[in-house]
Amino acid sequence: MKGRILSGMRPTGALHIGHLSVIQNWVSLQKDYDCYFSVVDLHALTSGYEDKLDFTRLRRDIALDWLSVGIDPEKSAVFIQSEVKEHSELHLLLSMFTPLSWLERVPTYKDQIQQLSIQGKDLGTYGFLGYPLLMAADILVYKASVVPVGEDQLPHVELCREIARRFNYLYGSVFPEPKALVGKVPLLPGVDGRKMSKSYHNAISLTASSEEIKTRVQQMITDPARLRKDDPGHPDVCVVDKFHQIYTPEAAEVAENCRAGKIGCVACKRLLAENLEKLLSPFRERRVYWEEPGRVEKVLEEGALRAHEAAAVTMKEVRSAMGL
Amino acid sequence: MKGRILSGMRPTGALHIGHLSVIQNWVSLQKDYDCYFSVVDLHALTSGYEDKLDFTRLRRDIALDWLSVGIDPEKSAVFIQSEVKEHSELHLLLSMFTPLSWLERVPTYKDQIQQLSIQGKDLGTYGFLGYPLLMAADILVYKASVVPVGEDQLPHVELCREIARRFNYLYGSVFPEPKALVGKVPLLPGVDGRKMSKSYHNAISLTASSEEIKTRVQQMITDPARLRKDDPGHPDVCVVDKFHQIYTPEAAEVAENCRAGKIGCVACKRLLAENLEKLLSPFRERRVYWEEPGRVEKVLEEGALRAHEAAAVTMKEVRSAMGL
Ligand code: SF4
Ligand code: SF4
Repeated sequence: MKGRILSGMRPTGALHIGHLSVIQNWVSLQKDYDCYFSVVDLHALTSGYEDKLDFTRLRRDIALDWLSVGIDPEKSAVFIQSEVKEHSELHLLLSMFTPLSWLERVPTYKDQIQQLSIQGKDLGTYGFLGYPLLMAADILVYKASVVPVGEDQLPHVELCREIARRFNYLYGSVFPEPKALVGKVPLLPGVDGRKMSKSYHNAISLTASSEEIKTRVQQMITDPARLRKDDPGHPDVCVVDKFHQIYTPEAAEVAENCRAGKIGCVACKRLLAENLEKLLSPFRERRVYWEEPGRVEKVLEEGALRAHEAAAVTMKEVRSAMGL
Repeated sequence: MKGRILSGMRPTGALHIGHLSVIQNWVSLQKDYDCYFSVVDLHALTSGYEDKLDFTRLRRDIALDWLSVGIDPEKSAVFIQSEVKEHSELHLLLSMFTPLSWLERVPTYKDQIQQLSIQGKDLGTYGFLGYPLLMAADILVYKASVVPVGEDQLPHVELCREIARRFNYLYGSVFPEPKALVGKVPLLPGVDGRKMSKSYHNAISLTASSEEIKTRVQQMITDPARLRKDDPGHPDVCVVDKFHQIYTPEAAEVAENCRAGKIGCVACKRLLAENLEKLLSPFRERRVYWEEPGRVEKVLEEGALRAHEAAAVTMKEVRSAMGL
């Protein structure tokens, strides 16, 4: 039997190329694992209950992005968290024996409260404190053995392991302890050199057209000291180089040529635009297929059913172990 | 359309005559309200996750007690809380916008933690802090307009009203604000004069046989200063009198006769035993009917279905209001 993977993303806005490595990692995991990829709308609510997000659109959009990049609904369950009721049921049952102190000491907890209070958000809520517990329920309800996460999420997986151990100790062995799989996420800057973010308008969208790619690459900040194309350049201070390092196989050679003044920024950018086009065009083609009305909806419906079926099996064991 | 009532009891052990007034109150409310009577096993877990209670037996037993006293499953939905998943779903959704401080300041919270820590229970758990929120979900998921509670539960109903208001403010008007209906619960002592409690072995069980009733009344502590049956007695220090006041129509006259030395304790107790027999014998007869294998189970199954149907309607509105 294959191991199981649970991972998710919040449906809070369109994805950009900075998110790609995470989804590509998911795509490659599909062949070795039974994967459950969840649009975690409930998590979005834990920190955004006042945001009035248009979940109907946002959830569909993010699933469409995943499918376009290569998530295969024949292999993986793609579903909306709030549609699988076992998540909230397990969350409540786990809450019974989870010490408040475990949640309070999650390293990100106090930081995030402070950070978000600057944005005018008051997150001293019961739900925000319980967010890592909800994540534990997300993972455990599928008995996931592996959880692909970013480095910042490691304490959450550790908490999940503690909760699994405590359940097993109190009620008998039901849950495996999931392992974190930390994906190496290359830090891509925005075209202006700042953090890539939709709100800075410096991102390259996953759905960028050929024209948009060209424009975005044109906008990329290059070595400001380089005035003529045969001046020696400094790729380490150039946004274009950061992208080459990930998307251009001969990146080292390009950087060398830049340093030697053997390639001009125009040609260098043209090469990057071509490579980004190669990267994104297959997504664009798949997207045409998945964009047909009803297709994403069907994937999400079938995904929720598959997720529910797996989760229901676990919940039966959980209830029986707890005597319910 | 009739108003709705939600009330519940924890399945933590057999009921005794001290619980009767609450159930009798429910019985009388059945004709004017749509009632949802819930065996709140999840609440039992919030403070007893380590107790390994035999819920299968305890839930059936308490439902059997209710039915014996006169809860009518044709009129009221009698169900097990954990079988209606909407409770945990709404609990999670309400948690998103419920300030921690609202839960921390519930008057009973710190007291109970302290009290239970004396019993060796560590209740610094996320679930125990969230127990009044779960109660709010229990009430709101049926849009109950009236909640029969004991005096000590008033702050919980007040919290529920605050949560309903906050939801309506944030997402639009969905929930009515439920009103507490404080039942006058006469304080019946145990036969030894202490608080009536199963653990003191001084309780009169709801299922007491005629013999048991007689024995229990025999054991009741009377006026210790009264040595002969024509001595003037002091009913105010006599356990028997406390019971007469509730179950004997001519209680005032009996007390008067006691004070005047006109009735002996033997006769006085005989009268009480007769009245308790009159009280409990109809319950015994109904119990014979409900005890037939499968009958309580069927009531609970149909009750859960009815509760689920009502709760699902509310949850549809809730999800839509929250944009889910
Ligand atoms: S040649 Fe390329 S790497 Fe060098 S500064 Fe120009 S754009 Fe950047
Ligand atoms: S006569 Fe009745 S009320 Fe008076 S002391 Fe005896 S038992 Fe109590």
